[in-house]
Amino acid sequence: MTTTTLNVKGMTCNHCVQAVESALTELPGVERALVDLKANSVAVQFDESVVTIKKMTEAIEDQGYDV
Amino acid sequence: MTTTTLNVKGMTCNHCVQAVESALTELPGVERALVDLKANSVAVQFDESVVTIKKMTEAIEDQGYDV
Repeated sequence: MTTTTLNVKGMTCNHCVQAVESALTELPGVERALVDLKANSVAVQFDESVVTIKKMTEAIEDQGYDV
Repeated sequence: MTTTTLNVKGMTCNHCVQAVESALTELPGVERALVDLKANSVAVQFDESVVTIKKMTEAIEDQGYDV
């Protein structure tokens, strides 16, 4: 299990926070995700043998945000 | 409920991660905490009517880390 912080552009409200956190935690291998709205970032704890940063990036982009 | 990211110096391993996350989540008003070990940071979701950044900083410092 490892952790990284991704910069996410376009999050403006709690709906965005929920969308990004849910998109991440629904991915197999993602344990926890915590968005910092003011910092435009999301901290993610994940199993790097199961999920890649590329997959997580795509999941966020699918919600309409830039990583 | 709001979120912030604090920079924490001195975390080197998963024991440090647990110590910092537990110190935060044991505080009333702290909802979630997620350490990024490589980034030397912790993202915290908290109720600002219950707990202050000062209190969270002190809780981390009490564990032997610098904020």
